[in-house]
Amino acid sequence: MKTIAVINGPNLNLLGEREPERYGGETLSGINARIAAAAAGLGADCTFFQSNVEGEIVTAIQRAGGADGIILNAGAYTHYSIAIRDAVSAVSAPVAEVHLSNVAAREEFRHTSVIAPVCRGIIAGFGGDSYLLALRALV
Amino acid sequence: MKTIAVINGPNLNLLGEREPERYGGETLSGINARIAAAAAGLGADCTFFQSNVEGEIVTAIQRAGGADGIILNAGAYTHYSIAIRDAVSAVSAPVAEVHLSNVAAREEFRHTSVIAPVCRGIIAGFGGDSYLLALRALV
Amino acid sequence: MKTIAVINGPNLNLLGEREPERYGGETLSGINARIAAAAAGLGADCTFFQSNVEGEIVTAIQRAGGADGIILNAGAYTHYSIAIRDAVSAVSAPVAEVHLSNVAAREEFRHTSVIAPVCRGIIAGFGGDSYLLALRALV
Amino acid sequence: MKTIAVINGPNLNLLGEREPERYGGETLSGINARIAAAAAGLGADCTFFQSNVEGEIVTAIQRAGGADGIILNAGAYTHYSIAIRDAVSAVSAPVAEVHLSNVAAREEFRHTSVIAPVCRGIIAGFGGDSYLLALRALV
Amino acid sequence: MKTIAVINGPNLNLLGEREPERYGGETLSGINARIAAAAAGLGADCTFFQSNVEGEIVTAIQRAGGADGIILNAGAYTHYSIAIRDAVSAVSAPVAEVHLSNVAAREEFRHTSVIAPVCRGIIAGFGGDSYLLALRALV
Amino acid sequence: MKTIAVINGPNLNLLGEREPERYGGETLSGINARIAAAAAGLGADCTFFQSNVEGEIVTAIQRAGGADGIILNAGAYTHYSIAIRDAVSAVSAPVAEVHLSNVAAREEFRHTSVIAPVCRGIIAGFGGDSYLLALRALV
Amino acid sequence: MKTIAVINGPNLNLLGEREPERYGGETLSGINARIAAAAAGLGADCTFFQSNVEGEIVTAIQRAGGADGIILNAGAYTHYSIAIRDAVSAVSAPVAEVHLSNVAAREEFRHTSVIAPVCRGIIAGFGGDSYLLALRALV
Amino acid sequence: MKTIAVINGPNLNLLGEREPERYGGETLSGINARIAAAAAGLGADCTFFQSNVEGEIVTAIQRAGGADGIILNAGAYTHYSIAIRDAVSAVSAPVAEVHLSNVAAREEFRHTSVIAPVCRGIIAGFGGDSYLLALRALV
Amino acid sequence: MKTIAVINGPNLNLLGEREPERYGGETLSGINARIAAAAAGLGADCTFFQSNVEGEIVTAIQRAGGADGIILNAGAYTHYSIAIRDAVSAVSAPVAEVHLSNVAAREEFRHTSVIAPVCRGIIAGFGGDSYLLALRALV
Amino acid sequence: MKTIAVINGPNLNLLGEREPERYGGETLSGINARIAAAAAGLGADCTFFQSNVEGEIVTAIQRAGGADGIILNAGAYTHYSIAIRDAVSAVSAPVAEVHLSNVAAREEFRHTSVIAPVCRGIIAGFGGDSYLLALRALV
Amino acid sequence: MKTIAVINGPNLNLLGEREPERYGGETLSGINARIAAAAAGLGADCTFFQSNVEGEIVTAIQRAGGADGIILNAGAYTHYSIAIRDAVSAVSAPVAEVHLSNVAAREEFRHTSVIAPVCRGIIAGFGGDSYLLALRALV
Amino acid sequence: MKTIAVINGPNLNLLGEREPERYGGETLSGINARIAAAAAGLGADCTFFQSNVEGEIVTAIQRAGGADGIILNAGAYTHYSIAIRDAVSAVSAPVAEVHLSNVAAREEFRHTSVIAPVCRGIIAGFGGDSYLLALRALV
Repeated sequence: MKTIAVINGPNLNLLGEREPERYGGETLSGINARIAAAAAGLGADCTFFQSNVEGEIVTAIQRAGGADGIILNAGAYTHYSIAIRDAVSAVSAPVAEVHLSNVAAREEFRHTSVIAPVCRGIIAGFGGDSYLLALRALV
Repeated sequence: MKTIAVINGPNLNLLGEREPERYGGETLSGINARIAAAAAGLGADCTFFQSNVEGEIVTAIQRAGGADGIILNAGAYTHYSIAIRDAVSAVSAPVAEVHLSNVAAREEFRHTSVIAPVCRGIIAGFGGDSYLLALRALV
Repeated sequence: MKTIAVINGPNLNLLGEREPERYGGETLSGINARIAAAAAGLGADCTFFQSNVEGEIVTAIQRAGGADGIILNAGAYTHYSIAIRDAVSAVSAPVAEVHLSNVAAREEFRHTSVIAPVCRGIIAGFGGDSYLLALRALV
Repeated sequence: MKTIAVINGPNLNLLGEREPERYGGETLSGINARIAAAAAGLGADCTFFQSNVEGEIVTAIQRAGGADGIILNAGAYTHYSIAIRDAVSAVSAPVAEVHLSNVAAREEFRHTSVIAPVCRGIIAGFGGDSYLLALRALV
Repeated sequence: MKTIAVINGPNLNLLGEREPERYGGETLSGINARIAAAAAGLGADCTFFQSNVEGEIVTAIQRAGGADGIILNAGAYTHYSIAIRDAVSAVSAPVAEVHLSNVAAREEFRHTSVIAPVCRGIIAGFGGDSYLLALRALV
Repeated sequence: MKTIAVINGPNLNLLGEREPERYGGETLSGINARIAAAAAGLGADCTFFQSNVEGEIVTAIQRAGGADGIILNAGAYTHYSIAIRDAVSAVSAPVAEVHLSNVAAREEFRHTSVIAPVCRGIIAGFGGDSYLLALRALV
Repeated sequence: MKTIAVINGPNLNLLGEREPERYGGETLSGINARIAAAAAGLGADCTFFQSNVEGEIVTAIQRAGGADGIILNAGAYTHYSIAIRDAVSAVSAPVAEVHLSNVAAREEFRHTSVIAPVCRGIIAGFGGDSYLLALRALV
Repeated sequence: MKTIAVINGPNLNLLGEREPERYGGETLSGINARIAAAAAGLGADCTFFQSNVEGEIVTAIQRAGGADGIILNAGAYTHYSIAIRDAVSAVSAPVAEVHLSNVAAREEFRHTSVIAPVCRGIIAGFGGDSYLLALRALV
Repeated sequence: MKTIAVINGPNLNLLGEREPERYGGETLSGINARIAAAAAGLGADCTFFQSNVEGEIVTAIQRAGGADGIILNAGAYTHYSIAIRDAVSAVSAPVAEVHLSNVAAREEFRHTSVIAPVCRGIIAGFGGDSYLLALRALV
Repeated sequence: MKTIAVINGPNLNLLGEREPERYGGETLSGINARIAAAAAGLGADCTFFQSNVEGEIVTAIQRAGGADGIILNAGAYTHYSIAIRDAVSAVSAPVAEVHLSNVAAREEFRHTSVIAPVCRGIIAGFGGDSYLLALRALV
Repeated sequence: MKTIAVINGPNLNLLGEREPERYGGETLSGINARIAAAAAGLGADCTFFQSNVEGEIVTAIQRAGGADGIILNAGAYTHYSIAIRDAVSAVSAPVAEVHLSNVAAREEFRHTSVIAPVCRGIIAGFGGDSYLLALRALV
Repeated sequence: MKTIAVINGPNLNLLGEREPERYGGETLSGINARIAAAAAGLGADCTFFQSNVEGEIVTAIQRAGGADGIILNAGAYTHYSIAIRDAVSAVSAPVAEVHLSNVAAREEFRHTSVIAPVCRGIIAGFGGDSYLLALRALV
């Protein structure tokens, strides 16, 4: 059975209440439940982690290094955390970067991901479905 | 039944022979066959178009404006064709931008997509599967 | 009798349906009819051309090189087509660059025209009237 | 009867003597006479103002705020006067930015207008006729 | 009774010992005492939080989301923490950004605040009084 | 008794009518009256000056050089007037830069103040209250 | 017998009439005749192609992929056509980029070739002889 | 007898009191007296003008257009006044740009003079003597 | 006896397993043992700290402020952590910045250290020996 | 008989031993022998000079000013030596800039030649043959 | 008796023959003779040095460190020689940077002097007289 | 016995007299004596070279190519000498770049080393000890 780690970054714990017109009304636990169900259907097992602390995300990626894949939504850290980038480089598990919104359609500083160059691929703009597509891509 | 237009840009007609270590050995018609099969499974119908000419891609997008979705791999034009961007803006069909390779891991000038800001979302880095994920996202 | 060539670029064939809140509800053929009528009043004769293909616009400018003036709305190509710029430089007919919308009020990348430096002048922001003003300026 | 305010900026009082190969031999009062005549023909009434002082141009725009239109050639201030830009934003009268020469064909720093983004439109490169075209556009 | 959350970022725990010629000799607890006293005078109640950890500041802002106002001195994170910016955007409480020193008079990289665009306002350069002014502004 | 000079720049004479959704409906004389009243309460005396002319603001600052403080809202000149900056540097009175709106939340070019580096501090975003907070800060 | 494809881009069909003081009075067919003669002398065979359309040049390069060499003067597309660059990368034939004029001595935007990094070499500034030198270099 | 116009810009009226460690203790009238004396010795006649208002400096240059030379210290306007630059271009009198301090040794933004490109020459860094050297250079 | 604090940042806990072709096969505890031994030989005492969390590194530096020296490898935070920079500025202990690899030979974004300007010196590129050289430099 | 000066810059004396995978195994004297032979065949006479010292290359160009042509490979100085550029400008002999490797395919800083704008033309990427092509171009 | 060292950089040995329309027809020895005569009149003694080699200019400045002043025209090195800048910083003699032409009116890269920030002052644009003015300024 | 070449660049011959508050009072020969002594203790032999001429440093590096290591302080050339960079690339001996001062704490232009990317490592900021640490690193 394949294992997939789902790692979420800062402010994603607020999903469903934070700017719902941008991020939708679904909560993070709602999305996680959908991922778990889809993973079960694909014969995979998921772990879930969320933190607002950059260094804890680094640690979570290190710990998930032996998984079959990592679904990573680093939130705002996407745009400047070289520490997270280095953690992604350091592990052998392929990483799919996901975003709920289409970051390319937002502020200029959100157009750059310092993490994407060391990921396997990127999926953005499909709301909670972005995670499910990433799950399918990795499995 | 939903209709999805699949539009490919310059040099994608060479898939399978052009730099296979980067783009894989699958040909464009091979990918298209996979998309058509998957679409059938999802109850959708696909049309396929490829051109090396920027303006013909503009026209193809205009013609596909009434579809339920457009899967667009504009190839090199992704990085500078404001004409294609404007065509995407002009039509009501949601557009998913796809790439075979992880463009963020390549030359600096490939990190910018002038088209992405007006698309629904973006999927990159999963080879021919990028198209299939986009199909699923749009349907 | 003076001859004026009216050349329109990509997506301008969609006028009237594309983002009418920005470009107005008038179609391109409607504008062309107004130009033709005004030209007749000024004792001039107009030809009309539209294409989504950059190279065909280059060719159209070359062919109109012997006219008494060219009214050119290169659409999105305005911002990056050095090929069109070179065509304008290559012909002796004076060229007036026109835009329906006030490009200076839109996205940053629309503030630069690579064509304007080799035109006679520029008129932007007055909707379909921009063409009529250009006609009057050239005649 | 419509009222149009014609406002000219620094060094335009020298028209006719300053670099005539660039700006032509017509004086500002000559151009103003032509504008007045054309306005009469169009059933409009014009006021004329020129100053070398940025702040006086700000004040003039404020005072012309109730006119049916403002023809503004801010001269060199075009390229850096945010104060004039703010005055244009503050009044309800539509403003047409005009230039005698084709500013896009001159030094790099003349390619940017900080005022244009808040104007209705721009006309440049047709000598004294630029004013007359603007008059027609506003009326 | 109104509630105001006072949140301080990295190295502000060293106030009074760290570069006193720049930040003054007053300690953070000294400033907090002054804020509490002033708040009492204005009929408001304050909570106080300081952390060197970016993610903990994100969490603190999330927790203070229901307050009547947040006084935020994010210290060095002011200049690059998009995570904190997003937290400020996510809560409904108005946020006043404060600084002890005049950041505009220091190194170039301190001139940019990535947080300020989503705050209500900014007060900088008045030492410990900056906090008291912010308190007054929010109440 | 302390003396404070309140100096306002271009277009601030339009307060109350200019873009009230941004600047509020209060007029400049209304704000000045509030400042005068507050100053009286703090045992200070205020002078008031407004001009659209950059050089007159320079002169006003020079004349206020002996005051106990200057409250300066240089309006649009904030972003490019090195002349005003030099005047601030030249006088011994501490200067507080104020803005009605949160300039950091507006156009990119309003994020830079060439004057702030030589001021004592800055207060922005609290409407007419920005002046009152500055008054309190200086007194 | 070696085969060499000679591919010319936009506006090169005007050679001899377009700005002869820059490009010389020789026509493209004149240059081609000289190339064909020289090739015969070197035991090589040449094909000739010219188009104003970027995508047709892409296709021409693809078709010439099996030749022993390609002489490419992409004209204005040299400076922005990543599509042509990708075509050059995709074929195995070595490509020599040529220019009639010394592009380094012209406008800033002509100093950059997006194609040169994937070519074998570059020859510029020797008029029609640039082609002949490239022929010799490739053979 | 030759006539030389000496024109000084903003804040130079404060010479002798403003930052004397940078600009020296000599007043502007002291410098002017030295210039007048030296001019007399060289058989030249000087006029003197100072203003804090950019537009009045423009006018002063226009009025001095018929002199045998202009000594111009535009102060802070040196770095952004295209209006003054245009006035210098418009007159036939040769202009020498002078500065008391070595502007190249100060803030980055003082390293650029928008006026110097249209002056005859520049002299900076020799205090009040800069004016005397310019006088000698022009005479 | 002198005390030296050795502080390591994110992902350095993976030394020996993370990209050994770049960072070598030696583990962090192996390096630390070598440092401790060398320190003993030099009559110095070392403390060791590693964290992936930026703010904990800030705190560690604050706590080591009274040591005779700090050897700091901030890892990825080197390139953007102004918070760590401020902590280094705030303490009196001299800080030596070290890196295992030659950061100047890697990606562009690794060429900038925001911390180095406030350190005593920098040593990079000598693998684990970089720490030993720093120890010697500080002692 | 025509005379051609061949001038080589820094590190070109190492040809054949320095990075042969980039520059080939041929030595500079080997290339020079080939040039001399080819020149003889073309009825021309060559002189040869190599130096690591920028100023000596300047002097060599000055001395070759009366030749019928100069073949210049300025090596690394190509990218920053304005002194060599000025020497090229100062002499009447036409100069062909040559490079062994395709500089456009190497580091970013090698893409710019400060010398090329004042040369007749440029030939790069054909190894030792670049010199022979330049010889032919100049003769 | 005061001693002044006159140091000239690359290509200035060609004065009188190199681009006389820019630099005039006077030779360097002619200028030096004028300087020597003027120096004698001012009771000063001059030494003269010219070299095309950057390092020799460094050495010449070091050797002239004990003079009463140095007149330095570093030619092209002005724009990039930090080595010469450091030599100027290292000596106690005041240095006047001179240029024959008005460098601000020439190519963009000539607008920056890396040496000027450590000189006493700068004089440019007055031909050979620039040296004489510098002599007077230093004496 | 290992051989180490110590190569110093421009103005380092002035050590001990040039800005001693920055570079210390120790002369270059004093440092060299310390290096020679330390080398003897480590069983290594050193050669010493200093020049102000960039090209002579290039030659010195070429000559030291067979040594066991090179200690290189290129002084000001560090920041722009691609010629020296190429010499370092061309030799097989590992090169340690050293600086007396902490260049990261000085002017912006000293933060970039064009040489460091091709060196083994870098040591800066420890005065004359930087050389001794480099010696130890290389041996």
